[in-house]
Amino acid sequence: MTDKFSGIREQLYVIIFEADTRVGRAFDLTLIVFILLSVLLVMLDSIPELHQQWGSWFWGGELLITVLFSIEYLLRLYCARRPARYALSFYGMVDLLAIIPGYASLFLPGLHLLSTVRILRVLRIFRVLKMVQFMGEGSNLWLALKRSRYKITVFLTTVVTIVVFVGSLMYLIEGSEGGFTSIPKSIYWAIVTMTTVGYGDIAPRTSLGQMVASLLMVIGYGIIAVPTGIVTTEMMRPPPVGGVCPCCGRKVDRAEER
Amino acid sequence: MTDKFSGIREQLYVIIFEADTRVGRAFDLTLIVFILLSVLLVMLDSIPELHQQWGSWFWGGELLITVLFSIEYLLRLYCARRPARYALSFYGMVDLLAIIPGYASLFLPGLHLLSTVRILRVLRIFRVLKMVQFMGEGSNLWLALKRSRYKITVFLTTVVTIVVFVGSLMYLIEGSEGGFTSIPKSIYWAIVTMTTVGYGDIAPRTSLGQMVASLLMVIGYGIIAVPTGIVTTEMMRPPPVGGVCPCCGRKVDRAEER
Amino acid sequence: MTDKFSGIREQLYVIIFEADTRVGRAFDLTLIVFILLSVLLVMLDSIPELHQQWGSWFWGGELLITVLFSIEYLLRLYCARRPARYALSFYGMVDLLAIIPGYASLFLPGLHLLSTVRILRVLRIFRVLKMVQFMGEGSNLWLALKRSRYKITVFLTTVVTIVVFVGSLMYLIEGSEGGFTSIPKSIYWAIVTMTTVGYGDIAPRTSLGQMVASLLMVIGYGIIAVPTGIVTTEMMRPPPVGGVCPCCGRKVDRAEER
Amino acid sequence: MTDKFSGIREQLYVIIFEADTRVGRAFDLTLIVFILLSVLLVMLDSIPELHQQWGSWFWGGELLITVLFSIEYLLRLYCARRPARYALSFYGMVDLLAIIPGYASLFLPGLHLLSTVRILRVLRIFRVLKMVQFMGEGSNLWLALKRSRYKITVFLTTVVTIVVFVGSLMYLIEGSEGGFTSIPKSIYWAIVTMTTVGYGDIAPRTSLGQMVASLLMVIGYGIIAVPTGIVTTEMMRPPPVGGVCPCCGRKVDRAEER
Repeated sequence: MTDKFSGIREQLYVIIFEADTRVGRAFDLTLIVFILLSVLLVMLDSIPELHQQWGSWFWGGELLITVLFSIEYLLRLYCARRPARYALSFYGMVDLLAIIPGYASLFLPGLHLLSTVRILRVLRIFRVLKMVQFMGEGSNLWLALKRSRYKITVFLTTVVTIVVFVGSLMYLIEGSEGGFTSIPKSIYWAIVTMTTVGYGDIAPRTSLGQMVASLLMVIGYGIIAVPTGIVTTEMMRPPPVGGVCPCCGRKVDRAEER
Repeated sequence: MTDKFSGIREQLYVIIFEADTRVGRAFDLTLIVFILLSVLLVMLDSIPELHQQWGSWFWGGELLITVLFSIEYLLRLYCARRPARYALSFYGMVDLLAIIPGYASLFLPGLHLLSTVRILRVLRIFRVLKMVQFMGEGSNLWLALKRSRYKITVFLTTVVTIVVFVGSLMYLIEGSEGGFTSIPKSIYWAIVTMTTVGYGDIAPRTSLGQMVASLLMVIGYGIIAVPTGIVTTEMMRPPPVGGVCPCCGRKVDRAEER
Repeated sequence: MTDKFSGIREQLYVIIFEADTRVGRAFDLTLIVFILLSVLLVMLDSIPELHQQWGSWFWGGELLITVLFSIEYLLRLYCARRPARYALSFYGMVDLLAIIPGYASLFLPGLHLLSTVRILRVLRIFRVLKMVQFMGEGSNLWLALKRSRYKITVFLTTVVTIVVFVGSLMYLIEGSEGGFTSIPKSIYWAIVTMTTVGYGDIAPRTSLGQMVASLLMVIGYGIIAVPTGIVTTEMMRPPPVGGVCPCCGRKVDRAEER
Repeated sequence: MTDKFSGIREQLYVIIFEADTRVGRAFDLTLIVFILLSVLLVMLDSIPELHQQWGSWFWGGELLITVLFSIEYLLRLYCARRPARYALSFYGMVDLLAIIPGYASLFLPGLHLLSTVRILRVLRIFRVLKMVQFMGEGSNLWLALKRSRYKITVFLTTVVTIVVFVGSLMYLIEGSEGGFTSIPKSIYWAIVTMTTVGYGDIAPRTSLGQMVASLLMVIGYGIIAVPTGIVTTEMMRPPPVGGVCPCCGRKVDRAEER
């Protein structure tokens, strides 16, 4: 009987944790649909008009999804090879986080905060995608970012310094009339400007301020080339031995060659 | 007689569907001019002042263009090698879509929607360009996009997750005073901010909100390097055997060489 | 005497048209300073307060600069090898354009338009820079743009189509309340949004409109990778025979090799 | 005794100026923490509400930090191999600038300007980072920028010319109603638009103005590809002989090979 049992556990494991079989893929797809549905539900429930009219339907949908995710969590615990390790892993936490705020929002509806935390279920998308082909590419991106961490640090330090410097300068130049009421607010404006977002809620009025702002815009517009150059260069790095160089197209044969 | 007939059909086919002859190119150019004229007409007709003053002229112009496009459509049907297949193809649909709303808007002027649908004629530009040199380049772009679809999916998933997460966070932090009245509205703000559009209709007021917004801006400003890196890397990929490497300019002779 | 004369002409030619001698470089530098001064003068003169207070000084400065540029133009005509050809060349036109509006604005001060045309003197910067090292790089940039003109055409056609399509869609969705009063205005909004400028003078109010706008923003944010990829790829193209490949660093020896 | 003394000086030098030992790194880290604290303090002190409530605490913190930085400066002077040269070097100036405005703001609290100058301490971050690994990457970035200075000059000249030209054009088209009150203001608008910042405080109202603006936006949106291409190309340049090609990963052995 233990054999049969462990057989079921093994099968469940393959379905729930892996994506190589047809049933496993179907499970993943169903999960993604439910995750998206639950996120949509939280979003719609936050719209006051819809909450008033369809509030009880949303409550029902939330109940259903929370129960389904609870069953899924218990099944994961049941068929995981090392349940404790799973429960304490990052994705185990994410899975747990997908149900606790659900129960909390169902039975403590007054807690605004808890009901919004449910939106973190969107992170579960990554848990499902982790198992499929996509994530290989994702880890490549991650590696490219990791390899260029020094360059990125230098870049970010430069950006922060420029932003602090120009922000303080504008605080002196513009004063409180234009909205530059304090240095932090001026730095906020500098970030809004340098990243080319440009809300316009705070904007320079004086000629000198507009000249400094123009300079900052041109810097911000040009300096974006730096992270772009970094990431592109990293992405073109030769692949591990046995792969094909994306730039020259030559096969990388030996480690020494590189 | 069938011979002479099929000769005319053949000649028409070469003129209408191909662009290798001088007459064929002239036909394509005329078509592009009429497409642009018809799109311009729809645009001008939507301006209330112009509609009131020149409405009947626009009606006349629309009639002329619709009739011309109808004749063209019938000719295409007539000389196509497989008329049914043409009629059901994507470009056949586009060609049909260029005339139906025309007749509808001519004889049912009250239907605002139908008269705007005529603007879809702009898609016909692609149908004409398809036959000329440009499209070779276009298909290269398309191939580059297609080859990097996994990377793009990972990128978009990350962007959507960040936007949902930060949007919900700002909904909690800012509340309804700053315009963050619901999670969907907050997510809309997060997209506006992260893509560096920055309308400023919704903008954070609290210090904490402005700090989170600053972080989102810097992320949005930096993360643009990722699609840029992806597309650039793909464009530099060596072409298939027999092609010329866009990077080194060498001819790629043998598969082993690569 | 003709010999001495042609000697002076030759020397003047070297000073005015070339930049290889010390005097020639000094002349170019002086010219750039006067061009920038004259542009600054036009700019300051357009500020109502300054015009009222310093108007006569600006008039004097304008007189001085116009006379100096006139002398320069006459000298150029005098020492040019083929005066007629110079006068009809692009830069000859630019040189002439630098003085005519000057005289016009001096003696017909009421003509607002003519006095602003003087700002076109800024184009003379290029005429001076043409002769120095910078322009080699400039022509490389130009070549890169020229070589990728098909790709750029496809890109721009796609952008225009998206903008016309989404603009018309938003005209239907939003209507005139949000500022989408006509299709051209909606297309203007679509351009403002897709290029991530985002003034905020026209912005979607309805939920559906904001969803479409979000999509357009993400497209605009991602599609910028395409021109970037095109330009980067073109810039890395191997140089002509005898140069060094910027990518692989190999010397390009023979035309066949490429 | 001189020996013992010079031993202490030597040890201090290693701790303060270098980052190879454990104590040296600890010193650098402590310094960074104090720099960030001092910058935070200046920022918080500039917020009127906080200044009123916690002003005296900020004063105390400022006193502490100024004294600490003074001691550090004296120690640097003491253990530097050539004190005069250190004092006159760029970083020596930055170190001095970190304390003078401190004393000034402590004892001349009325001087708004001096108290803001303290924020320049943020530049000291670079003085600390200079000694660690990061700066190698920074100098690579710097070299890439330096090598492409001609290209960047051409690019900036083009941008400035476009901005001056379009700004003046819009001054003629829009006039003072839309906020285009003078040419400098119009140029400011053109910079805000071309860099895709888009505050929206000045925005075209007329149809013609919106068409010109649309064109400027598309140019600004596309032209960003140029600096990106420049920087990426420079970053991929092969390193000097003996280094490793960032593109192919091969060691560059001989100059002829390249």
